[in-house]
Amino acid sequence: MAGSGEFVVGLDLGGTFLKYALGTLKGEIYHKGKKPSKGEESKEAIFGVIFEAIDECIAIAKENGGSVVAMGLGSPGAVHFDLGKLMGNTPNLPDWGDADVKGTIEQKYNIPIWADNDANVMTLAESRQGAAKGCEQVIAITLGTGIGGGIMVNNQIYRGTNYAGAELGHVSIDYNGRPCNCGGTGCVEQYASAPSMVRNFVEKLTKNSTPVPENVTTKTIFEMAAKGDKDALDTIDETCVTLGSALASIVNIFNPQMIVIGGGVADAGEEFMKQIFNVVKKRAISPALKGLKLVKAQLGNDAGMIGAMSLAAEMYEMKK
Amino acid sequence: MAGSGEFVVGLDLGGTFLKYALGTLKGEIYHKGKKPSKGEESKEAIFGVIFEAIDECIAIAKENGGSVVAMGLGSPGAVHFDLGKLMGNTPNLPDWGDADVKGTIEQKYNIPIWADNDANVMTLAESRQGAAKGCEQVIAITLGTGIGGGIMVNNQIYRGTNYAGAELGHVSIDYNGRPCNCGGTGCVEQYASAPSMVRNFVEKLTKNSTPVPENVTTKTIFEMAAKGDKDALDTIDETCVTLGSALASIVNIFNPQMIVIGGGVADAGEEFMKQIFNVVKKRAISPALKGLKLVKAQLGNDAGMIGAMSLAAEMYEMKK
Repeated sequence: MAGSGEFVVGLDLGGTFLKYALGTLKGEIYHKGKKPSKGEESKEAIFGVIFEAIDECIAIAKENGGSVVAMGLGSPGAVHFDLGKLMGNTPNLPDWGDADVKGTIEQKYNIPIWADNDANVMTLAESRQGAAKGCEQVIAITLGTGIGGGIMVNNQIYRGTNYAGAELGHVSIDYNGRPCNCGGTGCVEQYASAPSMVRNFVEKLTKNSTPVPENVTTKTIFEMAAKGDKDALDTIDETCVTLGSALASIVNIFNPQMIVIGGGVADAGEEFMKQIFNVVKKRAISPALKGLKLVKAQLGNDAGMIGAMSLAAEMYEMKK
Repeated sequence: MAGSGEFVVGLDLGGTFLKYALGTLKGEIYHKGKKPSKGEESKEAIFGVIFEAIDECIAIAKENGGSVVAMGLGSPGAVHFDLGKLMGNTPNLPDWGDADVKGTIEQKYNIPIWADNDANVMTLAESRQGAAKGCEQVIAITLGTGIGGGIMVNNQIYRGTNYAGAELGHVSIDYNGRPCNCGGTGCVEQYASAPSMVRNFVEKLTKNSTPVPENVTTKTIFEMAAKGDKDALDTIDETCVTLGSALASIVNIFNPQMIVIGGGVADAGEEFMKQIFNVVKKRAISPALKGLKLVKAQLGNDAGMIGAMSLAAEMYEMKK
């Protein structure tokens, strides 16, 4: 039962789907849903989908004798946390750019909502209910098309002065290295993201005049490595060295309790996690390694909506 | 006048000197002093010097109609902040290793004392009374024999889980780079610290068969650069690129308001600061650069005792 009938809604907006959940302030989920997010359409169309999800959750809260007291939303892109507004472009949601999440939703529902970047929301979810439950200093990274990051210090998400911090994919591992889309040089995203892994692998095959299989993905690489393919194994080794090197610097900076790795590439499994951690252990300073754990994210695709629920619940309790 | 006669003592312990100050909770200094720290001698000898300094400050507080209510101490080495104890070795103070600062001093004086790492104390000083006054997100680095670091997030010094964080000299800028004493690879300390600068410069001279001047220091390098010496200019350029690359990663992580650079090498002046900042601006992501300043530390040799006073005052007010 929800304590005093108070419910929260967590919304996880992506380019393809909006995932959402209704739950208690303590994080128990009453109801989950998923709708096409209309990410390619107008801001109004996307808000329309969000409204449908909220309406559904409010109705279910009512059926359960309660009401929605706060909402949270995780979104791709940079989010001005105090204003609840998107800042600048959002890849995959071309018209979502400067969406006023807080203004639009609070005006319609008169229920407070907090919006945050999706990597921050995932970090919050893993720290409250997932792999890093109970930890106050957590580094989370997502390995996918890009490398995203979230930082929890002293039990709170760290966002930076202009909400532009925690860009852990843009930690440089080589000051003379590959140019990055961000304008930087040698960013780890250029070495250890999914497309970079594929590029590294294809380069090796081409160099050896080995035929390149069609539609290579990181899954292909891990499958071929499992069969002992040397190029695939070397590609994975290099990914671990480059990612581990960036993480070692991050460990020397934060001395965290836990590193959580999520995103599609992390599904490669425990052996991959172990291999990354071995590089970190070899490269970071020993006092900062004491007690450190490196683990795979636990909440998978639910992390966004769970984190958005946690955000809503925590901000609601704080402002009360 | 000290408000209600409450004074704090700030102690800055180094290998050569103990610097100390008596002041108000608001940071006004009433009295400053400096004594040889007996860093090469026993723990008891060092504590003896600290006791003399405290006795002197207590007497002056009394003369001014007040009393010392809290003390702070900055020390080289890793400090367990909650226990007020040194952890592990302290270069230049061979016997100071696991000194129990809090236990020893509180037992003798029955006045609360807080001890912290000297780079943290310097960061606090610059953030409260120096170059970064009023900033809540600050990165401080000291360029000297090593590269030290301090991090202020949300207006508080960030220490890490085991007080082993903020090792900004051990951010790697090249995952295939120079081995570091810490066991890591490519740490920026191996490129941009004073000895590394000298080493880079001497290597260039040797390569060109140019005679190496006696007792080269970073000062020699900056002086020769001012006269247009190409090797000296190149050495400084490389220092800025390597240091700037590490700082760009740190900016992408923290999105700070201010970077403060202190330590002996920072005395090279404004042009050097500008050149480092240009590298950071070229390499960091643009949203994280918005409003960022990079400046030289202001408090110089007084930073330690001022920061130790601030630490005492802030912890006293918090615990009250």
